[in-house]
Amino acid sequence: MSEKRPVVVDLRFARESVVNALRSAFPDRPVVDMGDPANADRDLSDAEFAVVWKPDPALFRRATGLKAIFSGGAGVDHILSAYELPDLPIIRFVDRSLTDRMSEWVVWQCLHHLRNGIAYAGQQQARVWHEIADQPEAREVTVGVMGLGVLGADAVHKLKVMGFDVIGWSRRAKAIDGVVTFDAKGLDTFLGRTDILVGLLPLTDDTRGIYDRALFSRLRRAGPLGGSIFLNAGRGGSQKEAELIECLKDGTLKSASVDVFEKEPLDPDSPLWSMPNVIVTPHAAAASDVRALFRHVEAQIARLEAGKPLEFVVDRTAGY
Amino acid sequence: MSEKRPVVVDLRFARESVVNALRSAFPDRPVVDMGDPANADRDLSDAEFAVVWKPDPALFRRATGLKAIFSGGAGVDHILSAYELPDLPIIRFVDRSLTDRMSEWVVWQCLHHLRNGIAYAGQQQARVWHEIADQPEAREVTVGVMGLGVLGADAVHKLKVMGFDVIGWSRRAKAIDGVVTFDAKGLDTFLGRTDILVGLLPLTDDTRGIYDRALFSRLRRAGPLGGSIFLNAGRGGSQKEAELIECLKDGTLKSASVDVFEKEPLDPDSPLWSMPNVIVTPHAAAASDVRALFRHVEAQIARLEAGKPLEFVVDRTAGY
Ligand SMILES: NC(=O)c1ccc[n+]([C@@H]2O[C@H](COP(=O)([O-])OP(=O)(O)OC[C@H]3O[C@@H](n4cnc5c(N)ncnc54)[C@H](OP(=O)(O)O)[C@@H]3O)[C@@H](O)[C@H]2O)c1
Ligand SMILES: NC(=O)c1ccc[n+]([C@@H]2O[C@H](COP(=O)([O-])OP(=O)(O)OC[C@H]3O[C@@H](n4cnc5c(N)ncnc54)[C@H](OP(=O)(O)O)[C@@H]3O)[C@@H](O)[C@H]2O)c1
Repeated sequence: MSEKRPVVVDLRFARESVVNALRSAFPDRPVVDMGDPANADRDLSDAEFAVVWKPDPALFRRATGLKAIFSGGAGVDHILSAYELPDLPIIRFVDRSLTDRMSEWVVWQCLHHLRNGIAYAGQQQARVWHEIADQPEAREVTVGVMGLGVLGADAVHKLKVMGFDVIGWSRRAKAIDGVVTFDAKGLDTFLGRTDILVGLLPLTDDTRGIYDRALFSRLRRAGPLGGSIFLNAGRGGSQKEAELIECLKDGTLKSASVDVFEKEPLDPDSPLWSMPNVIVTPHAAAASDVRALFRHVEAQIARLEAGKPLEFVVDRTAGY
Repeated sequence: MSEKRPVVVDLRFARESVVNALRSAFPDRPVVDMGDPANADRDLSDAEFAVVWKPDPALFRRATGLKAIFSGGAGVDHILSAYELPDLPIIRFVDRSLTDRMSEWVVWQCLHHLRNGIAYAGQQQARVWHEIADQPEAREVTVGVMGLGVLGADAVHKLKVMGFDVIGWSRRAKAIDGVVTFDAKGLDTFLGRTDILVGLLPLTDDTRGIYDRALFSRLRRAGPLGGSIFLNAGRGGSQKEAELIECLKDGTLKSASVDVFEKEPLDPDSPLWSMPNVIVTPHAAAASDVRALFRHVEAQIARLEAGKPLEFVVDRTAGY
């Protein structure tokens, strides 16, 4: 039917969402869906593009004719960690819907901690009518966002509108209206001013284990919330989970909201599940909309075919 | 020390916050603090102004020389319900801090329902790692705000920034950028489009009991959240609580966040405390900052003394 070479799809997402989205995706070329057992041993040497999320490591050995690899999510650590990665452009997923969803999660959790959501839920359970005293307003609280990329920049903007005092940190210096920003060298000052720390960093060699006791203990503990709060929706590999748990126990951290974990799914035995000062969500902060993902891939392939450069190409040296 | 006549303060707020704020308030006139038992039987006939929250009904009989009555909060139902209310201007409390706090509560609770906060808390307790399917984004969900006054207008703006589709309803027609609005006659259409209903109405003869089964059953139940959601941070007298509870049981409403109740404190026996689909907060959505309240009263008194008209004067016929 088509003379175009196939796109191979290996997405460990909810199966139904992939199947549904594939119905209308890539109308002009064949699709090899690795989620279909019939394709398990198929020859992949003719595939031109791959769209992957936590792909089978063997994929890149089998698909020898690829021109580009598309990540199913904003992060690409799940691809870069493959042993035998061909030297091809890797394109990350950037999409309005993904960005909006992440900011929903970040603002939701910042407000939940600001407005004593955990304490009020406890009071409700005990049928206690008691207005918690000294409720600070958002403008008295400084949210420090680590990672000012596509997601961080949007979260910063929306946190500002909600009234928070917002500061940010990124590898290279940034200028964002109304937000004091720090680059790598300014980490100490940044942490010392931060009441609620929001992690939106990619997982790279530089960010692995960056959220550890040493970092948590540099946060501003004497702020209006009576302690420091940690949110992570970047990658679990960036947190030293054992130290996070200890810091939540000994008061170095007052509370936390964690969406990503060193090992996912989170072990049923992890203390995080039942800690009274922790909110756990199952890597659900910003799910990729699979239809939007395929539209993004189609658009990038069209650019390539029109002789234009690909967008959102990963810098392999930086690791994101 | 001063020739000015006193201001009488009768605020049923946390005692400490009143005492603290009074230290620096009204430097040029005497203050009679009714929270101080020493003033229980004091002659109040010389008082010129009153600042009240749920005042002793006898106050207005005793303070016969008042020129104006200042409400300690945005609502004035607690004053208008007094039997023997003198025919004086009643000034409601309008303040940036109050407005910001209310929008924090509204956005927090809208996001909590959008992002399945109740279900995820249950999963956490059961140590279940499961991403809830078909998470809609804010833009797919219509939040309908009843009451587009000082608080409603700010909430509408911030809900829009967070991505929600927002519509509004008020007594008189309003024009708000990017928001479809309805006046009294448009109630049916407004409700039929609403997924999350946010109540920010004052309590008046017209709004007493307005949130009843008939109203809840007109909400859009087939929306992306799989049911209708009700938030009330206006006044409890506007909700028929028995019908609210029934609607939450029989699925007319999927869930609710309730900050205000027919009778406060909420009865320890109320089923609302333990309903799995209800969030209860103890009339804490937007506490008055007492310092800001006194600054506002001082500013209005200064206007009066400069021969300027008072602002934020209540329309007694409308009841707010
Ligand atoms: N939980 C979820 O559901 C979910 C969903 C989507 C994405 N994510 C995670 O969110 C991450 C961020 O996404 P994004 O689209 O915002 O990425 P991005 O646009 O690539 O931005 C990454 C940001 O992190 C900064 N950064 C990277 N390495 C750094 C270092 N060593 N020190 C300081 N700053 C550093 C970058 O600094 P520069 O600005 O100087 O480059 C940039 O500001 C993704 O990588 C993914 O892991 C999670
Ligand atoms: N839970 C808390 O902690 C807390 C804190 C502060 C305030 N509140 C409550 O919030 C209420 C609203 O405060 P606000 O400052 O926004 O008041 P506002 O500026 O007076 O606005 C009231 C709004 O309600 C509308 N309205 C009144 N009666 C109506 C009716 N019968 N039908 C339709 N719309 C009607 C008004 O319509 P028009 O625009 O046509 O006049 C206006 O848009 C207060 O009265 C108070 O009860 C609660």
